[in-house]
Amino acid sequence: MRLVVSSSYPYLNVMKIFALRLNPNQDLKTELKKFTLENNVRAGFILTTVGSLKKARLRLANQKQSTSFVENFEIISLGGTLCQDGLHLHIALADSKGNTIGGHLEEGCIVYTTAEIVLGESKTYTFTRVFDSDTGFNELEIIGD
Amino acid sequence: MRLVVSSSYPYLNVMKIFALRLNPNQDLKTELKKFTLENNVRAGFILTTVGSLKKARLRLANQKQSTSFVENFEIISLGGTLCQDGLHLHIALADSKGNTIGGHLEEGCIVYTTAEIVLGESKTYTFTRVFDSDTGFNELEIIGD
Amino acid sequence: MRLVVSSSYPYLNVMKIFALRLNPNQDLKTELKKFTLENNVRAGFILTTVGSLKKARLRLANQKQSTSFVENFEIISLGGTLCQDGLHLHIALADSKGNTIGGHLEEGCIVYTTAEIVLGESKTYTFTRVFDSDTGFNELEIIGD
Repeated sequence: MRLVVSSSYPYLNVMKIFALRLNPNQDLKTELKKFTLENNVRAGFILTTVGSLKKARLRLANQKQSTSFVENFEIISLGGTLCQDGLHLHIALADSKGNTIGGHLEEGCIVYTTAEIVLGESKTYTFTRVFDSDTGFNELEIIGD
Repeated sequence: MRLVVSSSYPYLNVMKIFALRLNPNQDLKTELKKFTLENNVRAGFILTTVGSLKKARLRLANQKQSTSFVENFEIISLGGTLCQDGLHLHIALADSKGNTIGGHLEEGCIVYTTAEIVLGESKTYTFTRVFDSDTGFNELEIIGD
Repeated sequence: MRLVVSSSYPYLNVMKIFALRLNPNQDLKTELKKFTLENNVRAGFILTTVGSLKKARLRLANQKQSTSFVENFEIISLGGTLCQDGLHLHIALADSKGNTIGGHLEEGCIVYTTAEIVLGESKTYTFTRVFDSDTGFNELEIIGD
């Protein structure tokens, strides 16, 4: 387990909160990536998300290619981390019967009515993503203060 | 994208944490609404939720009416924002086979054994909800400090 | 509703943030339990999680026994609370078709490639778990500062 605990603030890790609303037709991942770069977010994580999509594009478990879905979905949850080296986000969506699908968020998830997102950013840590030959992916590394 | 970043605390947006447990037979949305009003929560968001329901009432994607479900469910996730103008929350539930449903939380979601909820409240922002003619809903607006 | 609000910090409840990455073959619940004990986390809650599993073991809604799944899953969400008396966590997983299952996290959820987890810990509250004869479970109690 990779763990870093701040020691300079014995009881407090400083967190910055960002709140944003996306508008119809914005691309969820594109906007989050742009936001992360423009605001120099170095150790970001999703605190909460609610909204809807009219199209989705997810990389499903164990798949190399991503899959598209054209349908109005509720965004049920979004979780993961954001840093200058990349975003790693998983999303759950529900359709008009309530059935849910989930996977790795890709570009191509287009907002239907809104997406309300609250992000936290630790000012104690820096997140990087480094290629891990064990997994074949760029994996999270956590650098302490 | 609607974005407000605090400038008065360069690295810190002040957050208040509320932790609560709901008891059997309480209505999840009713209690959260009451809590929000009684505590004058002006920029609240769900940080985490775990628990169970014995009935659910959700507005499913793309539907005008809400749908009722009578069954014991695990609460798998709850996300969204809370303010004096209203709550916008989406929930995921799982049944005795593990199958999940999700949608917009309505009154009529009744706690079975417990609901453990941790809320954050930004003291830097104020959330309001204003009618948006593009979507037909009262959408989140974020007012900075 | 069981509610404790801090009064000693009028606008601020002090939160500590922990960020961790689990590696392939680690057991998600075992590692979180160990982490909670080793770091004396007294009022912890999941802020965000993203990753994958190669096996899962969940207690499904309304079931006394837990159920095993052997398959590569995306971890779509994880929520709940952690304290010295125990962990109460619910998880959502998605398979290679995007289909999701959810339930109560048990030992036996084995990391496939990674699990990125950000935890918050309130330094204002202490969480305990006390047997509740109404529900038959050890339920969350929240002690204020």
